[in-house]
Amino acid sequence: MRILVVNPNTTASMTETIEAAATSAAAEGTMIEATTSGMGPVSIEGYYDEVFAMPGLLAEIRRGEAGGAQAAVIACFDDTGLDAARSMASIPVIGICEAALTLASFVAARFTVVTTSERSRVPVEELVRRYGFASRAKVRVAGVPVLALEDPNSDAVAKLKMEIARALDDDRAEAIVLGCAGMADLAAALQREFGLPVIDGVGAAVKQAEALIALGLTTGKRGAYASPLPKPFIGMLADFAPPAA
Amino acid sequence: MRILVVNPNTTASMTETIEAAATSAAAEGTMIEATTSGMGPVSIEGYYDEVFAMPGLLAEIRRGEAGGAQAAVIACFDDTGLDAARSMASIPVIGICEAALTLASFVAARFTVVTTSERSRVPVEELVRRYGFASRAKVRVAGVPVLALEDPNSDAVAKLKMEIARALDDDRAEAIVLGCAGMADLAAALQREFGLPVIDGVGAAVKQAEALIALGLTTGKRGAYASPLPKPFIGMLADFAPPAA
Amino acid sequence: MRILVVNPNTTASMTETIEAAATSAAAEGTMIEATTSGMGPVSIEGYYDEVFAMPGLLAEIRRGEAGGAQAAVIACFDDTGLDAARSMASIPVIGICEAALTLASFVAARFTVVTTSERSRVPVEELVRRYGFASRAKVRVAGVPVLALEDPNSDAVAKLKMEIARALDDDRAEAIVLGCAGMADLAAALQREFGLPVIDGVGAAVKQAEALIALGLTTGKRGAYASPLPKPFIGMLADFAPPAA
Amino acid sequence: MRILVVNPNTTASMTETIEAAATSAAAEGTMIEATTSGMGPVSIEGYYDEVFAMPGLLAEIRRGEAGGAQAAVIACFDDTGLDAARSMASIPVIGICEAALTLASFVAARFTVVTTSERSRVPVEELVRRYGFASRAKVRVAGVPVLALEDPNSDAVAKLKMEIARALDDDRAEAIVLGCAGMADLAAALQREFGLPVIDGVGAAVKQAEALIALGLTTGKRGAYASPLPKPFIGMLADFAPPAA
Amino acid sequence: MRILVVNPNTTASMTETIEAAATSAAAEGTMIEATTSGMGPVSIEGYYDEVFAMPGLLAEIRRGEAGGAQAAVIACFDDTGLDAARSMASIPVIGICEAALTLASFVAARFTVVTTSERSRVPVEELVRRYGFASRAKVRVAGVPVLALEDPNSDAVAKLKMEIARALDDDRAEAIVLGCAGMADLAAALQREFGLPVIDGVGAAVKQAEALIALGLTTGKRGAYASPLPKPFIGMLADFAPPAA
Amino acid sequence: MRILVVNPNTTASMTETIEAAATSAAAEGTMIEATTSGMGPVSIEGYYDEVFAMPGLLAEIRRGEAGGAQAAVIACFDDTGLDAARSMASIPVIGICEAALTLASFVAARFTVVTTSERSRVPVEELVRRYGFASRAKVRVAGVPVLALEDPNSDAVAKLKMEIARALDDDRAEAIVLGCAGMADLAAALQREFGLPVIDGVGAAVKQAEALIALGLTTGKRGAYASPLPKPFIGMLADFAPPAA
Repeated sequence: MRILVVNPNTTASMTETIEAAATSAAAEGTMIEATTSGMGPVSIEGYYDEVFAMPGLLAEIRRGEAGGAQAAVIACFDDTGLDAARSMASIPVIGICEAALTLASFVAARFTVVTTSERSRVPVEELVRRYGFASRAKVRVAGVPVLALEDPNSDAVAKLKMEIARALDDDRAEAIVLGCAGMADLAAALQREFGLPVIDGVGAAVKQAEALIALGLTTGKRGAYASPLPKPFIGMLADFAPPAA
Repeated sequence: MRILVVNPNTTASMTETIEAAATSAAAEGTMIEATTSGMGPVSIEGYYDEVFAMPGLLAEIRRGEAGGAQAAVIACFDDTGLDAARSMASIPVIGICEAALTLASFVAARFTVVTTSERSRVPVEELVRRYGFASRAKVRVAGVPVLALEDPNSDAVAKLKMEIARALDDDRAEAIVLGCAGMADLAAALQREFGLPVIDGVGAAVKQAEALIALGLTTGKRGAYASPLPKPFIGMLADFAPPAA
Repeated sequence: MRILVVNPNTTASMTETIEAAATSAAAEGTMIEATTSGMGPVSIEGYYDEVFAMPGLLAEIRRGEAGGAQAAVIACFDDTGLDAARSMASIPVIGICEAALTLASFVAARFTVVTTSERSRVPVEELVRRYGFASRAKVRVAGVPVLALEDPNSDAVAKLKMEIARALDDDRAEAIVLGCAGMADLAAALQREFGLPVIDGVGAAVKQAEALIALGLTTGKRGAYASPLPKPFIGMLADFAPPAA
Repeated sequence: MRILVVNPNTTASMTETIEAAATSAAAEGTMIEATTSGMGPVSIEGYYDEVFAMPGLLAEIRRGEAGGAQAAVIACFDDTGLDAARSMASIPVIGICEAALTLASFVAARFTVVTTSERSRVPVEELVRRYGFASRAKVRVAGVPVLALEDPNSDAVAKLKMEIARALDDDRAEAIVLGCAGMADLAAALQREFGLPVIDGVGAAVKQAEALIALGLTTGKRGAYASPLPKPFIGMLADFAPPAA
Repeated sequence: MRILVVNPNTTASMTETIEAAATSAAAEGTMIEATTSGMGPVSIEGYYDEVFAMPGLLAEIRRGEAGGAQAAVIACFDDTGLDAARSMASIPVIGICEAALTLASFVAARFTVVTTSERSRVPVEELVRRYGFASRAKVRVAGVPVLALEDPNSDAVAKLKMEIARALDDDRAEAIVLGCAGMADLAAALQREFGLPVIDGVGAAVKQAEALIALGLTTGKRGAYASPLPKPFIGMLADFAPPAA
Repeated sequence: MRILVVNPNTTASMTETIEAAATSAAAEGTMIEATTSGMGPVSIEGYYDEVFAMPGLLAEIRRGEAGGAQAAVIACFDDTGLDAARSMASIPVIGICEAALTLASFVAARFTVVTTSERSRVPVEELVRRYGFASRAKVRVAGVPVLALEDPNSDAVAKLKMEIARALDDDRAEAIVLGCAGMADLAAALQREFGLPVIDGVGAAVKQAEALIALGLTTGKRGAYASPLPKPFIGMLADFAPPAA
């Protein structure tokens, strides 16, 4: 199996973290192709950054599909561009937020997402609602810039731990979901330290991608995810115009 | 008052329809500045097109705000890029879907949105849910390409009428919301013909923009809509990077 | 445009506050006719008072419509008698709660209503739910009798400010909605003081009334808001019987 | 036990139907006092009629409580004035809609309410939602004026049966709730004819009233249903002003 | 009337508490037959215990129905086995949780359930949601093992009172529901002490059973609760196989 | 990896169908141990059968865990006994309904479950709601007894196809979920025939089990799924009593 994992921000060092998590989760025989978006913001924090991460993300997925990838993972916890990617691609596409929440729901009746910064709180809360977990999951913010997770000297991990501790006490969380792809390397250690399931979305999404490939499932094309209609695109985004079928 | 109305697709003839509806709704003393996005798809049909309409839309809003506009209207029924626009702009931003649903809710307990094509059904249903009207509003599809609305020889209006008739019978609709900016010129005639409120989102949004300006209200910046953090954007979208404060 | 603004309680000094807010919000060319209900409680605090405010309110709307008003605003945050008014009147009718929540939803992803007293908490929570904002808005109580808002020597404003401060900290409110018509004069100063949007429903409703008039929209009469059937009313309320069509 | 059953419309013949149903449901030792409102509409069809039925209803409950009734039933399927009555009275108050839906939920996973006319459809749907049954119950309209139920020559019963038949086929209803107090005498025969539970709210509410009395339960007075504050009421409704405690 | 009240755990002393509450709630002429399950756990705390309480419970209901009981009450706050019992029995079946929540909803707009231990929190929250009260009711845990309620020397009652006090302050509860059959004897005293309605489910369910019997209502058999199909059951549970009709 | 797949009904031929689907979905290196419950009904159709399938199911899971299985799949679309199994086991447990709905949600915005018979419609609808898909998924019934799926001469497949065709037309389904473990062998052929994703829960659950094992995740034990408390169980189920820790 060949699974494309796209880091939709443009910071290659974060792609390394993501790739390591993806590879570690992959089954024997699964090849992970981790790639960094070639255009857009260096980190995705809030709605504005999301918009400008999408074209680069879609370009990577298109390229990956053409190169033989059988499924794609969007490695940003906002599930940036997920609906558009499902419309565009013939291969299935998985977001790390939906994948992580799903696995959490299989091991816990109540759980808490700990994400990075205030700009992401409401977007993540809306995803929790969209995916059907509003009555089971809470969202907390660690107060950590995304790129601080790449810096070993920052207090990011300490802040994250403090918020997990609060989730255990105040939310009665039975599992923790790490709300940023940049936290992917922390799951195992946090699980050991806190003694409850700690879920990283990157690994979770790789497993969902394997599931869809193994079962021969790909996005249904009769409704919301029908292929984009061929039409002209104007200006610097013209290359993204859907080709005539 | 100066209100910017952005057509986020790149078809200037549709902007004319939109401008006429906006101008006709505007109060005395309100100046409408209608503008067409300079990049992206010629019409917005489904999730993929939405992504590529957003940068051009945001560029127009930024330009409009710099030029003195006091509020912005996004004239596409998908409320394309609304959250990002609210984060970016200091002036308030209104989507035509949210504006139309709101006015419908003031004149009807149950109502139906009639939108263009199947690709838009689920996105509009999700907006209906997001805005809190899931138990009051239904979504119907007329089976009309967006640009057919610009073509006087198409059967677009006939199909739209057929679907309105079904909404009256099957949904017991007490009002109709026109689910595409390109239908803005049809509201008055349809209202006369069918004898119930027919709501165009462009006019509705202009009035909401006037309301916010008159009351001195603009987007709150303490949470989901905090201004984008200054950071580098890479590649052809680099010009969109938020400046340092 | 002529807009009727009815204070459904019988305290004329509160009508003055309401009239000032309405007038200040109105567009050039809009004439505000503020009126005080001629029967019922001197303030509306809880479900019981609401019942006895309704006949007087409906009488004022009927009188206003006969006198040429083109829309009516119900200036009590319980949206007292709104459904009945919509059934009775040919002109559109707006409640200040629905208008305020709507404008809040255009400038904030999360917001808080601060209302007067415990008797109003649940009624306002139920309105928040009815209007579709249950997942976005919280309700707080300042512990202030409605008529204390008229008394410059009371600690009403201090208590209101204390609760707004809590909403900012504990609810992460991005906007504040003032949950009583008697607070209409405080919005601008509170907005300046707290640095986030503060929304008064009276002004908000006037703008919605202008919107409906400008767009030629009035209540749909095919369902929930069909005109009352002609039938005898018995006893002291007999004058309210709907006339034969 | 003494239970007051108020017909909030002013048609005494309907009170007879209600009284018969109430008496037939009552336990040995329960005394039913059925009473007709002394003011307001002769039938309650839609939101407007409801408003003018409330003062007379509340007057009857006040009188009944003073006379020793231990619980009150509001015998109109709109649960007219229920919240106000709970605030005013020291004795518990039950609406026939909430009572009927509750018993239906004890004998059926899915059920359908058949009410009288289109004006009542949305109000009843909103009650179904308020009482928590939106995912389990549907509402149908028989197209029958309330007072036609009193007329043995009308086709009211035939129309009602036709709609029950549709509920069985199209809604897969496992029980039927009769959506009007005026249908109270039909439940037993319809249950025999259609072979599934058919629930009349009047009997249902009498049993709930008995339950509350037997268990020594009455309305909690710490929040939404706190007693009305003493304050002046102006005009012809002045007699309804709450007395100083 | 003959009402079977089954204690689905196997602790006879708890059945005595239940029987006393049931008898005290019953109308004159109602005969309570309280019975203890003959197999399964000595107390029901969490999902696992529930499973093994069900066969014994169903055996008691089958025996009770054969012996002439006209309705059955399941006296465990998890409403253990309720759906299966409704499918199996011809007589109506009531759970004490649904009965208690219902009566609470008739006397309070907001209320709190206080249950025993953490293992029961989520199951009870899910019942609150299932029965439609998610926006009105909260669940609290007293931290008391079920059987400690039988022990006069335990601090169970003290802990329960502490949690009720918190519900009054923090939840603004207008009524309290006792979330365990073993608390049935405490309702009256707690109601006096705290001055708000305190509802025991056993008494509540007995009254609902009387209601259904009096009104001639029993479980509808056309859908979810159709009688089990005759089929072989294998192994030690073979005796539970539904007989051929 | 070793994954236990339990058929909770006692029909060994259905276990063969299940085993084939599980094996075909499993990754290289995953060992499937399919097992048939040793007690209870020969098929599970409705709530009653579910109860008596649970003890045998739990016995198989306990045995499987003791024998080294690393995860368990419950191969009945009612997700029979899932909560109890999660409480009992240290290894993670997956239901085929939750697994199938999840994968459907990754490839379709709207989808339809086609289950066997009317007795299963409401239980499956309730699972759809519980898992958060109420606004995205519909449930249809093919009118097929579970064991007819084992009979090559029955018209079961024809009826199933008819219902899928209706789902495409009437529900606008973008994917189909097969609502019975006994349909597991049909997914691939139906997917080819209808040209949209068709999802079998057995394969779906095997992949989720692999995901949890690979990521080192198992059920959180701090809340709803805490291990059962040691306590005596009475009667023929005594062997199921949780041992002292």
